[in-house]
Amino acid sequence: MNFRLLIQYDGTDFHGWQVQENDRSIQGELERVIGSLEDAEVKVAGSGRTDAGVHAEGQVANVRMNRPFTPDKLRNAINGNLWRDIRIIKAEKASDEFHARFSAKNKTYVYRIINAPVMSPFWRRFAHHEARPLDVARMEQASRLLLGEHDWTAFCSINADGETRVRTVTECSIESGWDKRANSAIIEFRISANGFLRYMVRSIMGTLLEVGRGEKDFDTIQSAIITGDRSLAGKTAPANGLTLLKVDYD
Amino acid sequence: MNFRLLIQYDGTDFHGWQVQENDRSIQGELERVIGSLEDAEVKVAGSGRTDAGVHAEGQVANVRMNRPFTPDKLRNAINGNLWRDIRIIKAEKASDEFHARFSAKNKTYVYRIINAPVMSPFWRRFAHHEARPLDVARMEQASRLLLGEHDWTAFCSINADGETRVRTVTECSIESGWDKRANSAIIEFRISANGFLRYMVRSIMGTLLEVGRGEKDFDTIQSAIITGDRSLAGKTAPANGLTLLKVDYD
Repeated sequence: MNFRLLIQYDGTDFHGWQVQENDRSIQGELERVIGSLEDAEVKVAGSGRTDAGVHAEGQVANVRMNRPFTPDKLRNAINGNLWRDIRIIKAEKASDEFHARFSAKNKTYVYRIINAPVMSPFWRRFAHHEARPLDVARMEQASRLLLGEHDWTAFCSINADGETRVRTVTECSIESGWDKRANSAIIEFRISANGFLRYMVRSIMGTLLEVGRGEKDFDTIQSAIITGDRSLAGKTAPANGLTLLKVDYD
Repeated sequence: MNFRLLIQYDGTDFHGWQVQENDRSIQGELERVIGSLEDAEVKVAGSGRTDAGVHAEGQVANVRMNRPFTPDKLRNAINGNLWRDIRIIKAEKASDEFHARFSAKNKTYVYRIINAPVMSPFWRRFAHHEARPLDVARMEQASRLLLGEHDWTAFCSINADGETRVRTVTECSIESGWDKRANSAIIEFRISANGFLRYMVRSIMGTLLEVGRGEKDFDTIQSAIITGDRSLAGKTAPANGLTLLKVDYD
């Protein structure tokens, strides 16, 4: 039976999604726990890797098992053996062909920024802190340059996998709101694409932060996209502000 | 100079507000840091104690200092020396008479409950998890019995301080909402009073949880209030769901 899992995690205390020899990873934790339920080695396939410190509200994975679990029993059995910073929100039966990575059509990330003199303790794990004022309207304008099919070489790790660095950004938006708990302004940058390269969202975010502080103009972003010159893009923004929001399938 | 401080903390890794000999406390951390700025022992007076594991979005304290700080410099100097789970949100000059505890007129707490089969990792520090369905409308009805001036003996610790256990509940409400990050139902119980006894909110919350699960009726609550019989009240709800929201002064 092929199971599809909807997973949330607080990435703070993980070295990312991918199994590591000696470090705690989300995939590693899931394979350890599901392997003990199956009493055999299992392979948990995620929709994609998330880097160390990156969170997920809606990561998707699949795993093939021989033991006869109902989806809810499987969910509860896994959760009962995980630390509380990962949770299986839902388990469901999937077709044999379903593969969390290869079947994925689109992904959406959110990057959160607390824009206030003081960083609230309630967001320290889940948002980046920017004390300097940000021009959100300008950031929003700049973000429109990202829409569409582009080569993202200037906005990814030199070591990004894959044959091509062309991806299509289908949606992006920046909104400024008020977080009542933190008692401060919170900015949310949302971006959807048919795929993301390593560090792509954080590199775009770092660039938009420079725009928001008045340190970068639109022409430079346009040039970065066209030329693929990494020196034109901004610094990679910290991992803790980034969350994988959802993965879409047909 | 007497300074008034507005403070937020994630109470998870503290043994409560009050200074402890060997354990980490919010008051202890503040007195250590402010004492080092003042180069002398200082006394930080809070509006009241919060128990181990209880959070604050708007705790208020005051401290008298001789060194000439501007409020923003003081705030930044304190924050720069604290762990990130406590933050001074605001420092301001206060009159000599201002005392965070004796001048307080009213306090408001919120208790949060994630009511879903699975507890989201994003709320595990800040909300209580109740997997069983709760009848929020009944809880709301029951909460109206709490309004007004009552003797809260049935709803506090046997060791609660003070000459009298009479307090006036000025407002209370229960609302059920949807938390998008957790992707699940969240229930918020808010209660304001001119003062609270030790364990009072958590004991009331535990009672209302029993109402929500259909285990306690309104007559029993009424009797608990009238007779002061602790056996009629519910179990004390866990600390992690509780947050001090604000303290009001004239």
